[in-house]
This record gives sequence, structure tokens and C-alpha cells, in this order.
Amino acid sequence: MRYLTAGESHGPQLTTIIEGVPAQLTLERHDIDADLARRQKGHGRGRRMQIEKDQVKITSGVRHGKTTGAPITLIVENDDWKHWTKIMGSEPLEIELDQDDIKRKITRPRPGHADLVGALKYNHRDMRNVLERSSARETTVRVAAGAVAKKLLSAFGIKVGSHVLEIGGVKAHDVEYKSIEDLQERSENSPVRCLDLAVEKQMMDAIDKAKKDGDSIGGIVEVVIEGVPVGLGSYVQYDKKLDAKIAGAVMGINAFKGVEVGIGFEAARKPGSQVHDEIEWNKEDGYSRKTNNMGGFEGGMTNGMPIVVRGVMKPIPTLYKPLQSVDIDTKESFEASIERSDSCAVPAAAVVAEACVAWEVAAALLEKFGSDFVDEIKENINRYEDRVKNF
Amino acid sequence: MRYLTAGESHGPQLTTIIEGVPAQLTLERHDIDADLARRQKGHGRGRRMQIEKDQVKITSGVRHGKTTGAPITLIVENDDWKHWTKIMGSEPLEIELDQDDIKRKITRPRPGHADLVGALKYNHRDMRNVLERSSARETTVRVAAGAVAKKLLSAFGIKVGSHVLEIGGVKAHDVEYKSIEDLQERSENSPVRCLDLAVEKQMMDAIDKAKKDGDSIGGIVEVVIEGVPVGLGSYVQYDKKLDAKIAGAVMGINAFKGVEVGIGFEAARKPGSQVHDEIEWNKEDGYSRKTNNMGGFEGGMTNGMPIVVRGVMKPIPTLYKPLQSVDIDTKESFEASIERSDSCAVPAAAVVAEACVAWEVAAALLEKFGSDFVDEIKENINRYEDRVKNF
Amino acid sequence: MRYLTAGESHGPQLTTIIEGVPAQLTLERHDIDADLARRQKGHGRGRRMQIEKDQVKITSGVRHGKTTGAPITLIVENDDWKHWTKIMGSEPLEIELDQDDIKRKITRPRPGHADLVGALKYNHRDMRNVLERSSARETTVRVAAGAVAKKLLSAFGIKVGSHVLEIGGVKAHDVEYKSIEDLQERSENSPVRCLDLAVEKQMMDAIDKAKKDGDSIGGIVEVVIEGVPVGLGSYVQYDKKLDAKIAGAVMGINAFKGVEVGIGFEAARKPGSQVHDEIEWNKEDGYSRKTNNMGGFEGGMTNGMPIVVRGVMKPIPTLYKPLQSVDIDTKESFEASIERSDSCAVPAAAVVAEACVAWEVAAALLEKFGSDFVDEIKENINRYEDRVKNF
Amino acid sequence: MRYLTAGESHGPQLTTIIEGVPAQLTLERHDIDADLARRQKGHGRGRRMQIEKDQVKITSGVRHGKTTGAPITLIVENDDWKHWTKIMGSEPLEIELDQDDIKRKITRPRPGHADLVGALKYNHRDMRNVLERSSARETTVRVAAGAVAKKLLSAFGIKVGSHVLEIGGVKAHDVEYKSIEDLQERSENSPVRCLDLAVEKQMMDAIDKAKKDGDSIGGIVEVVIEGVPVGLGSYVQYDKKLDAKIAGAVMGINAFKGVEVGIGFEAARKPGSQVHDEIEWNKEDGYSRKTNNMGGFEGGMTNGMPIVVRGVMKPIPTLYKPLQSVDIDTKESFEASIERSDSCAVPAAAVVAEACVAWEVAAALLEKFGSDFVDEIKENINRYEDRVKNF
Repeated sequence: MRYLTAGESHGPQLTTIIEGVPAQLTLERHDIDADLARRQKGHGRGRRMQIEKDQVKITSGVRHGKTTGAPITLIVENDDWKHWTKIMGSEPLEIELDQDDIKRKITRPRPGHADLVGALKYNHRDMRNVLERSSARETTVRVAAGAVAKKLLSAFGIKVGSHVLEIGGVKAHDVEYKSIEDLQERSENSPVRCLDLAVEKQMMDAIDKAKKDGDSIGGIVEVVIEGVPVGLGSYVQYDKKLDAKIAGAVMGINAFKGVEVGIGFEAARKPGSQVHDEIEWNKEDGYSRKTNNMGGFEGGMTNGMPIVVRGVMKPIPTLYKPLQSVDIDTKESFEASIERSDSCAVPAAAVVAEACVAWEVAAALLEKFGSDFVDEIKENINRYEDRVKNF
Repeated sequence: MRYLTAGESHGPQLTTIIEGVPAQLTLERHDIDADLARRQKGHGRGRRMQIEKDQVKITSGVRHGKTTGAPITLIVENDDWKHWTKIMGSEPLEIELDQDDIKRKITRPRPGHADLVGALKYNHRDMRNVLERSSARETTVRVAAGAVAKKLLSAFGIKVGSHVLEIGGVKAHDVEYKSIEDLQERSENSPVRCLDLAVEKQMMDAIDKAKKDGDSIGGIVEVVIEGVPVGLGSYVQYDKKLDAKIAGAVMGINAFKGVEVGIGFEAARKPGSQVHDEIEWNKEDGYSRKTNNMGGFEGGMTNGMPIVVRGVMKPIPTLYKPLQSVDIDTKESFEASIERSDSCAVPAAAVVAEACVAWEVAAALLEKFGSDFVDEIKENINRYEDRVKNF
Repeated sequence: MRYLTAGESHGPQLTTIIEGVPAQLTLERHDIDADLARRQKGHGRGRRMQIEKDQVKITSGVRHGKTTGAPITLIVENDDWKHWTKIMGSEPLEIELDQDDIKRKITRPRPGHADLVGALKYNHRDMRNVLERSSARETTVRVAAGAVAKKLLSAFGIKVGSHVLEIGGVKAHDVEYKSIEDLQERSENSPVRCLDLAVEKQMMDAIDKAKKDGDSIGGIVEVVIEGVPVGLGSYVQYDKKLDAKIAGAVMGINAFKGVEVGIGFEAARKPGSQVHDEIEWNKEDGYSRKTNNMGGFEGGMTNGMPIVVRGVMKPIPTLYKPLQSVDIDTKESFEASIERSDSCAVPAAAVVAEACVAWEVAAALLEKFGSDFVDEIKENINRYEDRVKNF
Repeated sequence: MRYLTAGESHGPQLTTIIEGVPAQLTLERHDIDADLARRQKGHGRGRRMQIEKDQVKITSGVRHGKTTGAPITLIVENDDWKHWTKIMGSEPLEIELDQDDIKRKITRPRPGHADLVGALKYNHRDMRNVLERSSARETTVRVAAGAVAKKLLSAFGIKVGSHVLEIGGVKAHDVEYKSIEDLQERSENSPVRCLDLAVEKQMMDAIDKAKKDGDSIGGIVEVVIEGVPVGLGSYVQYDKKLDAKIAGAVMGINAFKGVEVGIGFEAARKPGSQVHDEIEWNKEDGYSRKTNNMGGFEGGMTNGMPIVVRGVMKPIPTLYKPLQSVDIDTKESFEASIERSDSCAVPAAAVVAEACVAWEVAAALLEKFGSDFVDEIKENINRYEDRVKNF
């Protein structure tokens, strides 16, 4: 299973082609739209999120509500495109752009964004050519691809959830949940996707304060996946470890600066005797663990416990509060302009992280169990799980 | 540039084939042996590290001290192999193994290791078939491959260093360094690869205490790479971001549970106005940054500042102090046995992390500048850097 | 450089996402439309080719007539989609389909097509789910991707042409050409893309006869690429040979059953002394060859001579003349139905082959010379070619 | 499943690392050595083939005669290495090489070899750096890797054979065989691997004549694989077609210039009504075909009929009979020297082709049915084949 995404922030549409999805998977537009909507929610989002309501068009690979095994094309049109046809059109410019349009050329790189580096790499003197693609707008179709992966996982009883652990230094403490459904529901009901009601308000206040200050704040999100078969990924080669692939996928989300699995960085502080998850066995269920410090992984493979992954998102680098930069044409120093105005995108980032982690798990699952159609895969899994139980 | 590794912990040898190294790179055995020796050092290593002195054999791809462009084979023989030929031989067993040998069959999985999961996945009732490959012994040839990558980077003036930031809860504070050479030298002179002499002794004490307790401790390592051209990696597709690839490579090191770039998880606590690295320019040097909170990356691309990556290693899961587990044959509960006796491998892990990060940077560099021979690549880089300076 | 295609024959659109095209390449819609039109021409095409006129929409990666380095999305809408929305829609069916629509369900596999095998593999009882994707309609977007590759090659003075050598047993003899432009022009002017005017008429007659007989015929096409730098591809690993990649690409075209380079299968009949291309040298041009029996390749690398590749296309398996098959529902034997009515698609296949070969050459070129923007690549090539000349 | 090869023709050893072989496969040295010996046989081989007897060492991934799932390292040592340690050593030269040794530097490229192109690409002034790797000696370890693939296929009842159809213009006519075992046995018993005893002697005479003339001849080989499940490979994306991958693998064999599947180039001469394989069905066996013109493939997928692939090998470019070339140091024209003296390697090439085709089929099989251990895969296949039979 592989996918490519394409599209610019103010272009006509975002597109993804997803290749390798098994046949006979029930898949409808609303399965994907639901996650697109979740990505647009969250306290702290700017005006654009309210204006645009992302909806997917499926133009291949699905027929009468079922996948066919052929590549799936998902398209999310940008509602705003009509205002950008001249600025962002693919055709050569024939007429002189008017004053207002010319202003859209960007020669002033924003610190923390790809602007300057992208310009140097690809030799763009108009940095709009960079920022239109490096924008987090692209994560829309990663969420769409992830929604397909989640739908696939759900066909095998695998459930995915996410929540926010920290925003702008405000930490959630009471984040216990009874079940993954409980986690999903409480996360969904919180404007900051936080399970700890005691700090939810503080998080919102921190976001509001950042907004008022013209500043931005980041935070930490956690993804949990339950019901994963034991033995996805492998220790046999460095690049087959599933936790490693997940780490790459999470770090690949715009603005993410760190990722950890299970107890993560806490592992530097605890002795081995308190860290490793002891092994139990009983006749009904086979092997199990008392604890999940490893976050679902041993030797780069899933160990049957829930996958628990956290990622940290830096504050959005688009501030009203100015940062010093340099105009690439005039070489004059200036204080960096803004293009957009979210003050905190951490709740949305949780949804993106869900998508990216789910994708990697689904891909690893197909690698282990084959990949042609859903019922065949289900049978392969069932027999494997029987054997594992009786091992 | 790609590589595969092979070999078991007590097999005859570890092997790696490295493909895509440019021609005309000066490369000698001692370039690699130096890093193998560094990997074997460190306060807290067990008996095996003292017994065996890893040395590489180059059996292809290098002629008269220069690479030819052909695949490079590196072999590290296991000195101990003569004692393991029966236990680990590739030939079918013809004679009855004696009592002592039979004891080497492993039916008791160690929590925190790949043992049980690997057995379930590959259907091994002798878990030696798992642990021989999942052992961190394999990182020997990852270090060897990384030494080739570092040699390649050095041909373009790119320097790699590493040090230890934390062991068993003891944190280094004063880790400033004047230059990468200073970092390398001080790290090399410390038995725990720590730049902060004030805590070095405490780290060693923590290791000794863990050893005495039959316990183990983990820690945090940092890799720094200086002199990297701006613009390696790309924002144009999620899987081309170099920081994401590095995150995958670091998480793929045995026992690593987290990875961060630049300020990493601190980004959850600071406002955007204090996080993003402001941009400066002067005629002589072109663009530069005042700070390096981003750890050398913007938009998944190198931004010309040093790459700064940290990873956390959990305590080694092989303890004298017993953990509860279950015998897979008898299903009896037991307290997990030990196979090996390092109490802390964090200093060595810094060397492994160096290798893994350097590899990704070298691969990204070849992707951008072509890959056939060293002088051609050097010219391509030089002209690019001239253009960047005058952009 | 990589690409994925998606879309069904009677779905709303075909889509391709092309990743890794350098920035600053001049690219306009008509560059691609020209090749789409060439693919639709040719004596022997059925009704659909006359009805639909394929045109591309560029929805990402190109701004104001120049590539940006971001992924390029190309879309070709199916004009006929309005008649197929119920049959091929992605939404679940809510209303009962009428009699006529139901007839569109396919339970009768056509020999020579993917129908039956695809049904068995993906468990489709309506084989429309197979044939919609396995249809050669998909080559439309491969041609589109190839047009981008050809545009890229042309920026470095590399020219691509193709012509037809044989159709239904009628062989072209006089296929000498003065230049690649001459080849292109004469091929373009022939209804069967044949350079030998003496047999052109016979080819058309053979096609007409096949049509009249309700039969179909295949043929042989040749692709020629001139101006390719020496040294693309490599001998150092089996999967880096460019001629091997090209062979895979050509065999991957629908209905192709063979591929050869240079003298190809004739090599089985000639002694080595008459086969290998002797090497010459002069001060102005450096090294050259007297002949091109090797079709531009030595050791899997381009040798500076024109690339010459031939592929054979089998007769289209959709015949009016019936072939025996079995209904998968009733298990009754029947004589296979037709879905479409081209009697010969060889001239069009030449255009597809051009696209596929050009793609592989362009990808190999970027691998050797880097991949960020056109002028940088051009400089890298120029200096390399200078060195080669003076080697 | 993937593999890399390494090693030079006169270096210490050839090495391959094979990754992704399932666990629990019975694999012993002699399984591989048998194919290495077959590769060294054949009328027309030079002196080296008689001197050296290739034997494999397995240094990882196999324990007590069974694969473990870990990467397999196969090593074939060059017996002759002791005479080449100075010429080919990896260490820098410290002492002055004597006159005889210096003669081994190569400045005279042989037409038809990689010599000149490789030198230009990698900037080697001693072309030994090229020819040592581009030599067909490397196919030894491709055969070794293929032997592992064949062993894996045999675990699922899939059988591989090969024979020679043409040498130096002498064509075999009567090549019918009763079973794949019959093909294997008769091929093995023929000094030219030809099933047609009537022409066997003519082929040998042609080889002897070429040798006497100081010339060389090529030929055509055919690989047949029986018992392949229907549905390996896929039509859903151009790069997933198994016939395309096989075409790439065959063209990637040293000196191969063409490849065809089933009737191959004959498809240009026959009408569709005589080409496509009609479909039959009966209750016991399910679907079948009357003929196998398609060589086992429809839509890029296996269709249950035997895979039949042919490749053409050009005459070996190392001739006693001189070809014109140019010394790269003096720029003087000369008549090309020889390094080796086989006059025909076609019978050996059949064994190499077997290996390369078997590899691709085995890799596709694992992709469809999962890849962890043999019995699990066998069960997955069996249930699939049951379903297919009753479809």
C-alpha cells in the first residue's frame, strides 16, 4: 500500500492516489468526510477553517460503495479557488497582473517555514511557489488517505483513537479511559481533544491568550490503536521495524519535532526492572502483558498491546507577532509577515497523526497477511490469531 | 545509496552490502575499525565487549584504498564463533547434541526483547532463532555502514559528532562546545561520552549501582552534524522529508523509544515567538540564523544550521534482576533468564545513532547532487553553494 | 521521479500524480495534449477514439507555465462519463438499476484479457470491476506522464521518436531516416506511423481486412531516443541497469509480449565479430561508435549512441470473431462478447511506448545529475559532457 | 523479498544478502551448489570454468538446515584470489607493483563491454575498476539467490526448468516435453541444454567453429515455470505487472538483448483469433485453457498456465578475433585485447535466466500470500486455490 499526495494550498484541489487497497472494502464518501471535518475543528483555528468545509470526491477505485482493488483517487477541492485562478493558474500569464495580484508575490521568508530553504533549493524568487506546497493544507489529503487506512483496519476489528496531552505548557493529567470508544468520544467532545476536563479550560485560555498576543503555541498529541495482531513489522532488518516507520510518519507531519512510543523519553529515567512489560499466559487468551510501557512494540514488532505513540508539534510559525527576516530581493531586514492566523493547531494535528499512524499499521498488516480482498485477509488473520493463542 | 545487513549474534560473521557509494572515495579499513572500537567502549559494557575486538574485512567495492562505485561488502567476524559452530551452524544436525548444547535452546522469552513476538510471528519454538538476529550485536555493521557514510560526508567538509545527555536520570547540563572537533574530542575522552564533567562521575556511579542491583539503565544521546548544505530533503512529498527519515532511522536502533530534533518536546511549552529561528543576511555569507531551535530543519529540509537529533534508549532488557515470564513449552511462569550482562549501553548507542543519522544525510546528499564520483559531486555542491550564497 | 496512475475506462476521469519533476521546467497543457491526440490517432481505431478528444487538466505542480518542483497532477476527464454515472458511480446503489443497466454486469470473461484472472484474484463476480481498470484506456495518463518526461528531456537536447515496423505480418523495410526530426515527421504523417511508404498501404489493407473479418492484428513498434548522455544506468547492481528498466516498462504496456534493444533477437544469429560496436576517437568529439548494434547500451548503461528499443503488441483481444469462454455464473460455455472494436492499436501503441521509454530515461538522468531545477541539472550535465569529451 | 549482490570477478569473494525469505524453509548448501555447478557447465566454456568449482558458504539466516526468517548471506569464494591479492586488494598500495602486475592495468576498452562507459561515468582511468564488477562472474550469486527462490517455490509445488532454443543461428525444432521433470532431465543431459537431439550436435559444432575462428556466438534460452497459482502480479498499476518485472529481470542479465513471453514477437504476425487462449471449465478442476500462447500471463498476472519466457543473449564480447578500439591514455587505435575465452555461454545463461525468473515469481507469491513462514503461506495458498477452483 502506497500513496502520493499533490496540490497547493490555494490551487484548485488537493489530490491523493492510494494504491494497494484490497478489494471488497466498504468505503463511502462520508467515511472520509467525517475525518476531514474532525481535522477542521478545534479551538484556535483561524478563519479559513470556518469558511471552507472540506469534502472528498472519489474518482476511482470505488464502485457502488466498495473498493475494487484499483487505485483510489481522492480529491478535495479548494472552495476558495475562484479567487486564486490568476495567482495560482497553471497557464502562462498573458496579461499584466494588477497591483493587488502582484502583491501576492512573496519575497519575504517566514522563519520556521520552508519558505527560504525551498527558494534556495528550487531557485524560486517568488516564494509562493514554495509555501503553497509546504503548507499544512496538504495534510487534508493525508487525513483522507488515513481515513481509508482506518476503514480497512476497522474491517479487522482494529480501532484508532487520539487525544491531546499538552498545549502551550498546560498538561493533561487524568487521561485514563475505559475503552478506545470512550477515548474517541471524550476526545471528540472536547474543543481541544483533551480527556482531562480539569485542564481543558486552561488549554483554551492558553490558546486565546496566544491569539491575543499575536503568538502561537504547540503541544503534544497521542495516538492509540487497539486490536492490532501481534507480529506486524519485523526485527530482521533495520528498515522493517514498524515503530521506526511510524516514527518517520509522525515526524513527517508538518511542524512536528519529536515522536515517542510507550514511555518514550521517560525510559531515560527508569531502571529496566520497572520498564519491561512482564509476560503472562492463560489458556483462554494465550500470552498477555501486565503493563504497556513499551507502547505496543518489542523488537520493532507489535506485541499485541495497544500501540501508543506521541508526537510534539511546534507552535505554528505564522505569527502576528513579528519575527526578524530578510527580503530576498532587497536584502532589507524586516519583521516577518503573516499569511494565516491559526494560533494553535494541536487538536487538528491529533487527527493528522491518527491518519499517519493508522496508515503505517494498515500497510504492515497487508504485508503480513496478503493484500487482495478483505475476506481473504480476514481469514488469514483469524487462522494466525488462533495459532498464536495456542502457541 | 542503500544497504542491507545480515548475521547473527553468535553466527560466524556479520555482513553488510552497501550499494551506491560514489567512486574515488578514499576508504580504508581503519576508517571503519575506529568506529567499531568506539561502539565497543563505554562504562557499563559487559564481558563480551572486552573479549572481542571487532575488525572489518572489506571484500568488495574498494580497490587500493579507493571505492570503485561497486557495492561494498563489509564483514565483521565473530571471534567466538568457534564455540558456537554446533549451536548455530547452517547445516542440519546429524549427531545428537550433548546436554550442555541442548541447554542453549531457548523456550523462555525475556520481557522487553523480541523473543516472544518473533517466535509467534515466525513460528519458532526455539527462540534462539529470534534473539540471535534481534540482538543489538547487529548494530555493529550498521556502525560500519555509517562509517562509510561519515567518510563520504567528510569528503565534502561535513562533520559528525555525538554525546550523551542523560543516563539513568542523571542529566548533563553544561554541554556547550566550541566546535564539532571539541565535541568529538571531549565525548571521546569521557567513559560515558558526556561533555559535562560535573555529572560524568554520577553517571558512572548510576551505572555501577544498576550493575550491582542486577538492573539496567537507559539514557539520551545527541547527534550533531555540521557543514550540511542547505536544502537536503524536501517538503514536496511526505516521505521525502529528511527529518522524518532520520526519525525513522533513530527509532530503528535497538531499544530506542523516542527521537526529537532541535528543541523537540520542549516545543510544547514555548510560544512561537521564542521558537522560530530568525533569518539574517550579510554579503559575505548570505543567509544565516541567530539560533538553532529547529535543529537544522525547516519544512523537512536542512536549513544550513547544524543538524541536532536526540534519541532515547530504554534500559537494556537483559537483567540479572528477574522479570516474570512464561515458558512457551511448559507454560510455567518463571523469572526471566539472562543472556548477556551489559548494565548500560547508552555511550555505545551514541555511536550507533551517529552512524544511522550520518547515513540518512549522506543518502539525501547524493540524491540532490548526483552520485557517481567524489570530485563530480564536490563540484556540483560547490556551485550550488555559490548560488545559494548569492541568492 | 515516480508516478502513479488511477482511473477506470468509464469512470469520471483518469488521474496521474507525478512526483520529482524538477522546478523551472516550461510545461503547458498543449505539450501534453499533443501526445494525447497522437495516441488517439491511427488507422484501425474504433468509434470511441473519434468521439472523445482527450485533454488534460493540470491541477497541481505547475504555476504560470513552469513547474514548481511540487507533484504534478494531470487529469483527463472521460467525456462519456455522464452516461455511466449509475453503472460506475462510487456511491452505494440505492435504487434498483433498470434492465439495461443490469446488462452491464459482466460474467463472461474474454480470453486474452485480465477479466477472469482479475475476478479470481480480487473475488469479483462482476468482472466490470476488473476490465474497467485493466483497459488500455489507462495508457492515456501514462502518455501524459511520458509527455512531461519528454518535455524534461527536450530541455537537455534529448529527442524522442517512434515508428511502426510491422503490422499483422506486413514488415517495413526502408526505415532509414536522416534525423530524429525526419523520423518524427514521417511517422506523424503516416496513418500507421510507418516510415516505409511502400508498405504503408499494405498495412492499412491488413487492418481493414482484419476489421472486416471481425478479427484483430498486432505489430512491432520502435522507439528511438537521441542525444542521451553516456553513462545513464549502471552495471553495479542488477536492478540499476537502464535497459532492464526500459524492458520492464515496455513489457508493462497493455498487450505487449516482447521487447528488444538494438539488434535484439538477431543477436542469436550473428557472430560476436559482427555484433559489437567498434570504438573510435577524435579530438573534437571524443569517443564514438561506427555502428549501433547494441541499441545505445553497454553494461546496462547508455553509451552515447541513440537508444533503440522495440516492442511487440499482440492483437487486441476484443474481437467480433468469437472466442470460446465460460460464463462464471452459469458455467455455460459461450463465444466471447466484445466490449470495444479497435481492430489494430499498434500505431497508438508506438506513442505509449515512447512515453514509457522516455520516462525511464528521464528518471535515470535525474538520478545521475540531481533533480532540483532545470538550469542546475543542465550545468551538471554540461560539465560532465565536457569531461567525457576530454577523458 | 529483495537481494543485493556484491563482489568482483577476481576479488576474494562474491556475496549476496537475501532479505525476506520466510522462516522454516529447508535449505542446505547443496541446494545452491547444484545450481552453481549447472551454471559452470556447458559446451563452449573457457578454462576458468574447469579450474574453479563454485561452492557456497551460508553465513547467516539458516540454522540447522532451516531458514529463520533472518537475512541470508551467501558467499562464493574465488579460488583464484591468492594470485590477485595485490592487483585487487582493498588496501592502499605501499610497495611498487612489479612489471607483470602493472600490465594488469587496463586502458583499452573492449567494444560490447561496460569498460569505456563505466570509465567515463565513474572517472576510472584503470578500467579494471569497471570490468571486475561488470563481469558476468557476478551472475554466480544471482544464481545462488535464484536457487533459494526455487527452493521456496518447490515448497509450494512450483517447478522451474530451462532449455536452449537457438545457438549461433542453429534452431531447435522438436522441443516438446512430457513434463517439467522431463524437460529438466533432458536439458541437464545435453551439453548445450537443448531438448532437440537432432540439432544438439550442430550447436556444438557451431560453438567449436566459433572458438576456432576466435569468434563467439549467442543464442536464445527459455524458462518454464509450472504450478504457479493464478493471480500473481496485478493489472492495477503499471509497475505491478509480473510479466513486466520478469522482462526487466531477464534483460538485466549480462549480454541479454531481448525478452519475450509466450508467442512473443510472433504476435505481430498472427490474427487475434489465433492468439488468445480460450477458456474452459469443468467441475473437478475449475477454469483452464486449451492453449498457452500467452505464456502464462493475462493482464500482467499469472493465469494458471505455465510461465514461458525467452531471452536472447548476444555473443560474448570477448573475442580472440580483434575489434577496433582506442587506448584511453594514448588515444591510439588498437585491436581489442581479450580477458577471457568462452566462445559461447548460452547454456549457462539458461541457468541464470531460471534464477532471475524464479526470483520474481517467488517475490510476487510472497506479496500475495504473506511472508512469515512456509506452512502459513502454504495454508494461505491452499485455501485460495480451493476458492479459485469453486469460483
